[in-house]
Amino acid sequence: MGRRDLKQVLNPEKGPSTPSPARSRNTGILLIDCPDAKGIVLAVADFLYRHQANIVHADQHQDIDTRTFFMRVEWELDGFQLPVEEFTEKFSPIAGRFGMRWHLRFSATKLRMAIFASALTHCLSDLLHRQETSELRCDIPLLISNHKAGERLAQFHNIPFHFIPVSPDTKSKAEAQQLELLEQHKIDLIVLARYMQILSPQFVSKFPQGIINVHHSFLPAFSGAKPYHQAYKRGVKIIGATSHYVTDVLDDGPIIEQDVLRVSHRDQPDDLPRKGRDLEKIVLARAVRWHLEHRILVYGNKTVIFD
Amino acid sequence: MGRRDLKQVLNPEKGPSTPSPARSRNTGILLIDCPDAKGIVLAVADFLYRHQANIVHADQHQDIDTRTFFMRVEWELDGFQLPVEEFTEKFSPIAGRFGMRWHLRFSATKLRMAIFASALTHCLSDLLHRQETSELRCDIPLLISNHKAGERLAQFHNIPFHFIPVSPDTKSKAEAQQLELLEQHKIDLIVLARYMQILSPQFVSKFPQGIINVHHSFLPAFSGAKPYHQAYKRGVKIIGATSHYVTDVLDDGPIIEQDVLRVSHRDQPDDLPRKGRDLEKIVLARAVRWHLEHRILVYGNKTVIFD
Amino acid sequence: MGRRDLKQVLNPEKGPSTPSPARSRNTGILLIDCPDAKGIVLAVADFLYRHQANIVHADQHQDIDTRTFFMRVEWELDGFQLPVEEFTEKFSPIAGRFGMRWHLRFSATKLRMAIFASALTHCLSDLLHRQETSELRCDIPLLISNHKAGERLAQFHNIPFHFIPVSPDTKSKAEAQQLELLEQHKIDLIVLARYMQILSPQFVSKFPQGIINVHHSFLPAFSGAKPYHQAYKRGVKIIGATSHYVTDVLDDGPIIEQDVLRVSHRDQPDDLPRKGRDLEKIVLARAVRWHLEHRILVYGNKTVIFD
Amino acid sequence: MGRRDLKQVLNPEKGPSTPSPARSRNTGILLIDCPDAKGIVLAVADFLYRHQANIVHADQHQDIDTRTFFMRVEWELDGFQLPVEEFTEKFSPIAGRFGMRWHLRFSATKLRMAIFASALTHCLSDLLHRQETSELRCDIPLLISNHKAGERLAQFHNIPFHFIPVSPDTKSKAEAQQLELLEQHKIDLIVLARYMQILSPQFVSKFPQGIINVHHSFLPAFSGAKPYHQAYKRGVKIIGATSHYVTDVLDDGPIIEQDVLRVSHRDQPDDLPRKGRDLEKIVLARAVRWHLEHRILVYGNKTVIFD
Repeated sequence: MGRRDLKQVLNPEKGPSTPSPARSRNTGILLIDCPDAKGIVLAVADFLYRHQANIVHADQHQDIDTRTFFMRVEWELDGFQLPVEEFTEKFSPIAGRFGMRWHLRFSATKLRMAIFASALTHCLSDLLHRQETSELRCDIPLLISNHKAGERLAQFHNIPFHFIPVSPDTKSKAEAQQLELLEQHKIDLIVLARYMQILSPQFVSKFPQGIINVHHSFLPAFSGAKPYHQAYKRGVKIIGATSHYVTDVLDDGPIIEQDVLRVSHRDQPDDLPRKGRDLEKIVLARAVRWHLEHRILVYGNKTVIFD
Repeated sequence: MGRRDLKQVLNPEKGPSTPSPARSRNTGILLIDCPDAKGIVLAVADFLYRHQANIVHADQHQDIDTRTFFMRVEWELDGFQLPVEEFTEKFSPIAGRFGMRWHLRFSATKLRMAIFASALTHCLSDLLHRQETSELRCDIPLLISNHKAGERLAQFHNIPFHFIPVSPDTKSKAEAQQLELLEQHKIDLIVLARYMQILSPQFVSKFPQGIINVHHSFLPAFSGAKPYHQAYKRGVKIIGATSHYVTDVLDDGPIIEQDVLRVSHRDQPDDLPRKGRDLEKIVLARAVRWHLEHRILVYGNKTVIFD
Repeated sequence: MGRRDLKQVLNPEKGPSTPSPARSRNTGILLIDCPDAKGIVLAVADFLYRHQANIVHADQHQDIDTRTFFMRVEWELDGFQLPVEEFTEKFSPIAGRFGMRWHLRFSATKLRMAIFASALTHCLSDLLHRQETSELRCDIPLLISNHKAGERLAQFHNIPFHFIPVSPDTKSKAEAQQLELLEQHKIDLIVLARYMQILSPQFVSKFPQGIINVHHSFLPAFSGAKPYHQAYKRGVKIIGATSHYVTDVLDDGPIIEQDVLRVSHRDQPDDLPRKGRDLEKIVLARAVRWHLEHRILVYGNKTVIFD
Repeated sequence: MGRRDLKQVLNPEKGPSTPSPARSRNTGILLIDCPDAKGIVLAVADFLYRHQANIVHADQHQDIDTRTFFMRVEWELDGFQLPVEEFTEKFSPIAGRFGMRWHLRFSATKLRMAIFASALTHCLSDLLHRQETSELRCDIPLLISNHKAGERLAQFHNIPFHFIPVSPDTKSKAEAQQLELLEQHKIDLIVLARYMQILSPQFVSKFPQGIINVHHSFLPAFSGAKPYHQAYKRGVKIIGATSHYVTDVLDDGPIIEQDVLRVSHRDQPDDLPRKGRDLEKIVLARAVRWHLEHRILVYGNKTVIFD
């Protein structure tokens, strides 16, 4: 659990200023994964019950291959009898007994999200509208782009716009500049909204499971450059888009969401990108929402989505 | 819990003769629904843990509208320390405390399924092949049809075929004949595989949540007769099929599964039924499988599917 | 063929100021429907060939039920040897021989589109972004809304915003005001972007096949008010959205496009509208694009989409 | 045009014995592809009109990349004034003028199809049922399998079953045996219904665009062995199946059809093949139907489907 999360919960005056009407109640969210064993659900249920938790959502999963147990449980903090600052101390014995990796999150604590964009603005425009209408609950303190295309959109949404051009020569300097901005703004999540630049391993390593990208194909098909062009050449009858966490290996990170659309011989090369844009917007927005609502658990190169 | 279920578990020599390789372990399945309250998961988890249950699958759901809690939990009977014949006695206090409706099922106990068919055999042929290859785990002691079309198929699968023609005049007599056969063969589930006859309320009342029908539209659109014809006339761009439990009101029972396909102006009246047959087969087979694996809970006119 | 269309083609200085890079060539588009007969394709092909038309797209359809023939043919005006102002005179004999309804359109002539919006802005924002990025080729001279919600968006896109509140008492006055604006701006197409008000038959009659609405269900299921609420209550496993031309009968006009998404018992009442918004945006945008590109032929209550 | 086709048309006593009610009329089908040029449609339309053809379906396509023109036109032979045996002579000048590749087919002439199967019988059973109910119009003179699994199914459908085991040592001998059977039965089309053996280039070269395979992934993802296993390991959220013509390169032939289904972390390794079987059946059956109805044109490594 990050220190900032805790502080925001404890200091309500620093809390979110625009609560979503649909999700106004403040909840705690516990994410767990550990080796599968008897008694895990019992131990967690017992712990929450003893402190009077009113559970609003619970889901668990067992991966048979790796004998791993996953759990997400969400409960109302209103009426919860355990002060959150004592949670770690009190929960640690249970976590220790089962060898749990665990995270405590609070629905009232908005994550801080940076968007990286480029010349194409459809994903950017879509994300900003979703955030403005509270479908995505987060703060967006900055937009970084290597094109000017998104500047007016950023202004419209009152989001500081940082134009950082990237060329092979300036890439490391650009990344240094980006990293400084991200640190300065205490960014939790980077969303690559058709950013089209490959981030260095050094950059990626600073945000494990903290960078979400959208690739315009149904991965693993057509990874790399020009996926629509590749799809057209191969004569596929379905195109897709994939949102995933960024790792060192290009287009190989844990897949969060995919969606597809039919195409036919009637679709000319220009039609594929046009059709695909709708997919890109949707699979990226879903991934971002699940991340912001703490619904994703990553294990190995795969994801559990507690939707 | 039905008496037959218990007997089959206790008398292994009457158990299933052809265990599916993939699901060969014998599990207990507990289905619960009750008013939502704190401590339900804890109580069930504690009960199972105390008797050394090795849980292989657990899922729960809270319906916010009606404040109802639903749960399905499945555990290995091998190693379970509570003799199944004592389950009811031991679990009743918990059930009573929370006002639970509950059912205990065993994966080793195959349900006994009757298929009702008519002139079109695509769903029939599909179901029989799935049962033969153990995708559907059940016994099919009889096939009832008002057409001869399915007779050879029944013979091929060694299933007794009962030809019972139905006309407005003979309907009540036909139903009496059907009911006698169903009782004689101790049928748990009736599947209407494009049967095309409306069952009387008296008939339906004898099998609450025990009759699954497939309707060839995405209900509630195009209920009643000739749904593909209705869809063609309305000029829809998508057709569908729906599997549901049969109730007194035509095409109005709890929906189990739906699926759809695109159509266009290019599809002539004949094309819709042809395309739709693939949907009918799939949505019916999914519904039957979920029912046989005890994955469906009905509340009001809706279903929870623990897939 | 509208007079304005012809003028714009003949007076290039009044033509479109921002040609789409992908569709920059100027084409003629001929839309035909007539009773099916031998020789129609031959007559049209011969006519175009004689005037040196370079055909870039041709499609035809025969409706078997009504024995009607439909055709859309698009050719490059560059090199076409028939001056467009003589087209009607020269083509009329062919049209007369086969009893054709026909329209000549020009890709360079942008339609003039008005958007009607209300409190929800997702479709509005989506359409404006598509227009700005030339995915939708049209002029949008005005936005009419009974809520202030879209005002800033309109300003951002430099589109005059007209706030016209509507109540049962003021409805006829409001419609008069709207009609005056529409006439003044020579509007060809009205798009109801989740407008949520029912237009009067008098209003509708002034724009035959000139008003496109999006309804948030897969029609004909759940027509009328609160379709997501209806869908939730019915327990469907799939939700949808439908774009259609507006006629006198509510939600009954010719369907242009539909799309659907899976839902499950896990989706609470709030989740359906959220998921559905993505459908609404897509089915409305597709319908608008097809209309703007003259790809839709209406016959009876159905559409042929030459995509 | 094959000699056998012509003979069957000219000698009605050798024609199909079980006409489909929906498609009973005898039609001619002309498939054309050639470099794009002005006047092609005109020339074909004129030719057919002069001989009094009553066209029931016509579709054309222009591939912009390769500037290729494709056409499929279908007309009633009843009333057609050109004896089919004179077709080639009369049509050759037109074909020569435009450099056409062309084929004339007759709907009354059933193709002769061989099915190759193996241990899994779901596609086999599905195809045989579709053929028996006239959804697939073809003759099936033989079934070849390297497993006994399909033998009873073949007997049920009165189709001679040939058990030809294949091992690395016996492969070339097995292929020789297969080829002899195929020649003896004058086979037009081979359908690999989950055959699971790789055919040699020599074998494949004898049936250009005459072998249809189904691969259990959305190609080009997960080509080669164990695609469901690969999909599970990669953690994709969508699985698919692909039907394609077989070429020398494994899983690389022209794609005919693809379809997909959602999966999630809840799907265990066993669930993917089970779900996928429904896809495999559908994409294979669609491909076979389109081939039998002469709706497919192959160009390069891609297909045009005139559906």
